[in-house]
Amino acid sequence: MFEILARCSQSLARRGVLRLAHGTVQTPAFVPLATRGAVKTLEARDLAALGYEMVLGNTFHLMLAPGPELVAALGGLHEMMRWPASIITDSGGFQVFSLGHGGVADEIKGRGRGADGAGAVLRIEERGVRFRSYIDGAKRFIGPETSMEVQAALGSDIALAFDECTPFHVTRDYTARSMERTHRWLARCLDWHGRHGPPGQVVYGIVQGGVERDLRQVSAEAVAASACDGIAIGGSLGADKAQMHEVVGWCTSALHRLAPERPRHLLGIGEIDDLVIGVQAGIDTFDCAMPTRLARHGVALVPDPGARWRLDLTASARRTETAPILDGCPCPTCAAGHSRGYLHHLFRAREMTALRLVTLHNLAFIASLMADLRAAIETGGLPEAAAALLAGAAPGSWSAR
Amino acid sequence: MFEILARCSQSLARRGVLRLAHGTVQTPAFVPLATRGAVKTLEARDLAALGYEMVLGNTFHLMLAPGPELVAALGGLHEMMRWPASIITDSGGFQVFSLGHGGVADEIKGRGRGADGAGAVLRIEERGVRFRSYIDGAKRFIGPETSMEVQAALGSDIALAFDECTPFHVTRDYTARSMERTHRWLARCLDWHGRHGPPGQVVYGIVQGGVERDLRQVSAEAVAASACDGIAIGGSLGADKAQMHEVVGWCTSALHRLAPERPRHLLGIGEIDDLVIGVQAGIDTFDCAMPTRLARHGVALVPDPGARWRLDLTASARRTETAPILDGCPCPTCAAGHSRGYLHHLFRAREMTALRLVTLHNLAFIASLMADLRAAIETGGLPEAAAALLAGAAPGSWSAR
Repeated sequence: MFEILARCSQSLARRGVLRLAHGTVQTPAFVPLATRGAVKTLEARDLAALGYEMVLGNTFHLMLAPGPELVAALGGLHEMMRWPASIITDSGGFQVFSLGHGGVADEIKGRGRGADGAGAVLRIEERGVRFRSYIDGAKRFIGPETSMEVQAALGSDIALAFDECTPFHVTRDYTARSMERTHRWLARCLDWHGRHGPPGQVVYGIVQGGVERDLRQVSAEAVAASACDGIAIGGSLGADKAQMHEVVGWCTSALHRLAPERPRHLLGIGEIDDLVIGVQAGIDTFDCAMPTRLARHGVALVPDPGARWRLDLTASARRTETAPILDGCPCPTCAAGHSRGYLHHLFRAREMTALRLVTLHNLAFIASLMADLRAAIETGGLPEAAAALLAGAAPGSWSAR
Repeated sequence: MFEILARCSQSLARRGVLRLAHGTVQTPAFVPLATRGAVKTLEARDLAALGYEMVLGNTFHLMLAPGPELVAALGGLHEMMRWPASIITDSGGFQVFSLGHGGVADEIKGRGRGADGAGAVLRIEERGVRFRSYIDGAKRFIGPETSMEVQAALGSDIALAFDECTPFHVTRDYTARSMERTHRWLARCLDWHGRHGPPGQVVYGIVQGGVERDLRQVSAEAVAASACDGIAIGGSLGADKAQMHEVVGWCTSALHRLAPERPRHLLGIGEIDDLVIGVQAGIDTFDCAMPTRLARHGVALVPDPGARWRLDLTASARRTETAPILDGCPCPTCAAGHSRGYLHHLFRAREMTALRLVTLHNLAFIASLMADLRAAIETGGLPEAAAALLAGAAPGSWSAR
C-alpha cells in the first residue's frame, strides 16, 4: 500500500505514494484535522481544491458524538463528510489520556509540569481506560478493541492502534511500563482487526518510549516486528524542538533499518520547520492542528522564520495594510486580493469569514510547502530546498519548476 | 438608473434593472446583509456564485469600526471587501435609533413594548443624534450630513438618506413629528450629496409614518417630491404580518401614482411570504437578516409554509436523516450531498462549517425564489407563481423554464 518513488541521497527523506481504499496520497504529505467530521470553517470541497488527499478524523470525539452507530448509519465517515478521498483516524488514545494526564497537548511537547487531577479518566488498566464523557458525563470505556471497533464503524482508510500517550513529566519507569502495555495493545488491535477489520482499512502501530533513546529503540523494534501496515511516532517528544527533532530522528533511524518500506506518520507535529526537518528525518505524513488553529486566532503563515512563520493579523500594525497576507500567494484569500487591513478588521469585528479566509491561506501555504518538498526529493534538490525554506523562502518555487 | 422591463397586469409588481456604478441588479432582488463588510460566514466570491448582484453594508457599524477613514484608505467598501458588484448602504438611522428606542428590530415589527432606557443614545435633536459607541464608549454624533459623508467614504452605489426609524410603541404625535424631521433630514442629505456626493452614487429617500395611513401618504408625497433617485420604506410596519403587508401596500400604492418610475426598497423585511407578497405590492429590492441569521441558528429554508419555511436542523428528529436539506436543491450544500444528519451533528458539535453550509443553502433558496418571481413577471405568470410559492412550491421551477 506504500510505494517509495524516490529517495533523498543525503537524508532519510523519501518521495512516496500511499495507495489506500479511497485513493492515493502523495507523500510527504500534511494531513489537516477534521476532528469532528469537518476541517474547522471549511467544506470538503475546499480541501480538495487546496490539493489535500487525506484528512484526520478523531476517534475519541466521533465516538462520543455523533457516535459510531450514527456515523455508520450516515454511511460511514467518508459519506457523512462527503469527502471522497482518504481518511486517517487516530486511536482515541491521545485524547483519552489527555483527560487523565492534564494538558497532554502541552505535556507531550514538554511544556507544563504535570497532571492536575482534574481529568475525567476514572481508571487506566490493562483492559483499557474508563473515563467520563465530556458531553454528558456518562461513564465510558475505550480499549484496543473498542478503538478498532469504532474506527471500523467510521470506515477510515488508515486506523491507528490504541496507545497510551505518555506525557513528559512521568518517570522513566512509568514510560517503560506504559510503552510495554501499548505494545500489548497493538497486538490486540491487530488481532481484532484481522478478524473484524473492514476490507481495505490498514493499521498503523505507534512507537512510544518518551524521550528515552533505548525505549524508543525497543518500541521501534516491537512495532516493526508486528504486522502493522505503517508506523506512527507518538507520545512525548521532548522539552523543546531540538529534543523533539532528536527523538524523531532516533525513531526514524531505527525504522529505516527495521521497516524501511513501511510508511511513517508523525503524530501532532507540524510547525513549518518541523515539517521540513521531519521530511528529512524520513517522515512521510504529518498531522497537526497548527495551521487551522492559528488561523482561527488570526495568525497567518508567512515565509518569516524570525517570526516562527507567523503574521498576527490582529496586531494594530495590520490595520492600514493594503497588501495581501503574502504577495504572489495563490491561495483563494490572497488571490482574491483580500488585504491585511480587511482581515484585521474582520477579526476585530469577530466575523467568521475571517477565520475561513485565513484557514484557507494557512492550509494552502502548508500544501505548497509539502509540494515543494516532494518536488525537491524527486529532483535530488532536497538539501537546498530545505535550507532555503528554513531560511524563509516562500513555498511554491520547487513544485512550480 | 432604473429601467422597468415588464409589469404584472394583476399587481403592482414590476421586473426591472438597476443600472448602478458597479453594474446592474436585476429586480425584484433580495440583498444579503454584509453588515460589517462581510456576509457572515461567506466570502465575496460565494455571493457572486450564488448569483447575487448587490449586498448591503451598514453605515452605523462601519462608521464605528473600522471607520470611514480606514475604509477609504483601504480603497472604499468595494475594494476593501473585494466585492466588484453593487453595494447599498443604509443610513445608520435604524441602528442609532435602536440604541435609544430599545430593541427596534423587534419594535418596528410591533413586538415588545417599548424603550427600556438602556440605550446609548444621548440626545436626539434637529441637528442629529448624539450617542455612545458600543465599541469604546466614546461620545459620537451622526446626523444627515454625517451619514452622507460616511456613505460617500464607503463609496456605496446606493446611499440611504438619514431617517429616524420610529418604533411601534410611540404616539401618533411622536410618529408625525419624527416623520417631519425625517423629511427635513432628507432635504439636507440631498443637499449635502448634491455638493459632495461621489460620482455615480445615487440616494434613496425613506418613507416613514408608522402604521398611520395618512402619515404614510404624507411621507410618500414628501419623499416623491424630493429629487431622490429611489425610495425606501422604513420604520414600524405594524403589529403583525397582515398589518405590515397593509402598510407596505399603502406606501407602494401611493408611490405607484407619485413616483412610478423610481425603484422601491423595503427595509429589513424578507420572510419568504413577505418577499412574494412584497413583490406583488411593487417592491423592487429587499434586505433582511433572516436567511443568514436563521442559518447561524441551525434553521434551513425549505418549501414548507406550514412551518414558516423553516427546518430546524438542530432538532433531534434530524439526527439520523440521510436526505439533504432539500432534495434536488442546486445549492452547494445540497448539491454536495450533505445530509441533515451530518448538519445536525455539526451544529451540535458547534462546528463553524455548519453555519456556512446552511447560509449557502438559505441564500441560494432566496436567490432561486427571486429568480422565479422575476421570470414569472416576465411571462405574465406572477399570480400563479406567487400562489404556488406561497402554497409550498419549491423555488426554481419558473426561472428554469
